[in-house]
Amino acid sequence: MSRYKITVEYFGEALAGWQRQKDMLSVQELLEESVFRFSGETVTIHGSGRTDAGVHALGQVAHFDLAKPMTAYKVTEAFNFYLKTHEIAPNKVTVLDTCEVDENFHSRFSAKKRRYEYRIINRSPPLAVDFGRAWHIPERLDAGRMHEAAQILVGHHDFSSFRASFCQSRSPEKTLDKIEVTQEGERIFVRCEAKSFLHHQVRNMTGSLRLIGNGKWSETDLRRALEARSRAASGETAPACGLYFMGVEY
Amino acid sequence: MSRYKITVEYFGEALAGWQRQKDMLSVQELLEESVFRFSGETVTIHGSGRTDAGVHALGQVAHFDLAKPMTAYKVTEAFNFYLKTHEIAPNKVTVLDTCEVDENFHSRFSAKKRRYEYRIINRSPPLAVDFGRAWHIPERLDAGRMHEAAQILVGHHDFSSFRASFCQSRSPEKTLDKIEVTQEGERIFVRCEAKSFLHHQVRNMTGSLRLIGNGKWSETDLRRALEARSRAASGETAPACGLYFMGVEY
Repeated sequence: MSRYKITVEYFGEALAGWQRQKDMLSVQELLEESVFRFSGETVTIHGSGRTDAGVHALGQVAHFDLAKPMTAYKVTEAFNFYLKTHEIAPNKVTVLDTCEVDENFHSRFSAKKRRYEYRIINRSPPLAVDFGRAWHIPERLDAGRMHEAAQILVGHHDFSSFRASFCQSRSPEKTLDKIEVTQEGERIFVRCEAKSFLHHQVRNMTGSLRLIGNGKWSETDLRRALEARSRAASGETAPACGLYFMGVEY
Repeated sequence: MSRYKITVEYFGEALAGWQRQKDMLSVQELLEESVFRFSGETVTIHGSGRTDAGVHALGQVAHFDLAKPMTAYKVTEAFNFYLKTHEIAPNKVTVLDTCEVDENFHSRFSAKKRRYEYRIINRSPPLAVDFGRAWHIPERLDAGRMHEAAQILVGHHDFSSFRASFCQSRSPEKTLDKIEVTQEGERIFVRCEAKSFLHHQVRNMTGSLRLIGNGKWSETDLRRALEARSRAASGETAPACGLYFMGVEY
């Protein structure tokens, strides 16, 4: 038996997110179906983390086992042959890289750091070329102010205020290693790094940072929101389409 | 009567290109329909240049006249109200800016320089997030070599070798002011500037530059292709989805 680690890119629009769902096609299902087609084996593909419907990934990582080994190169080629020509969702998912790993490797439990990027386009006119690929915020945001305030969130905290009500994590305590807000023209990027995140944490933090950026909130308001440990105390949930799962470190 | 200059962004996928067509929705039709909806006036919107089906624009420029004047701000808002919620093609076209101009301004005839960008993604795995937004070239390209060879094309030439058979330009002679090939990770950009271009010129030049990049052609081959003044002498036409009309200078 051989274990493979794959790095996966996907465009989340019209997909149910990472995890298998009854009614809608998910990334996991597309990948598992591909493995069955190229190897005849029924496998479970374990992702490093679930992503919600509509969220994109440039560097999701997953692992699975094959009873009959293949070279890593052949695995990548075989996946992409099916993913590229899938009858319902062609060109939505692509395998960037495959490597053989030892049986102790686990995409979820071995992860040391996960990176997310949230993309905002801050301009008055609606989006066309980037529609469905970023959060359109028409009112002027001060990215420098967002970056400074965001540093309040760095470190070990109870992130209940930024946690989805249906989050399945045992504890609301997490350690945010890094959060950076940068601007390039009309684009604003919120980049976060942590060993793990609560469900909706990045989207909920971004929703609150909008309030800092447009001047509705002061740094004190953000600090109070964090300390309130209640979802009601923080800003809106930023839409899924602006979120990109960038990568995992092991 | 007031004349307006508008700057327009559009995502070309599933649109017939700039010009009105009988069977498929075009950017021009979407804009003219919007003007009729917000002003009741039937106008012709004159673009600075036509773009083919599937080509995108970040800075197309056009002009039109209104009998009953409106402020530039209101024109932008009114356009976007309709374009954003269009029943067939919502969020495909957006007006970035409107200014009132004098009656001598003509988006096409007053143009001094047009800028295009051609986007290539050079990697082995197929595209997912950027599918339909760039040309996927799997074999390794040498962007530095492409840039150097491309300089052969700069200046005043007969560009017949890079001209679509159905091109309507009176003369195949054009002056290419600038062509730059740059690389950022797996992305390669071909940026061109000229007063005007022949039909398919940027896409055909890019198709030939691929042959330079992958080593099939030497600089001498490119020079011979240019001098042959025959479409048969040059490379394939790069796909429409990688082409972005970036802007016009007046």
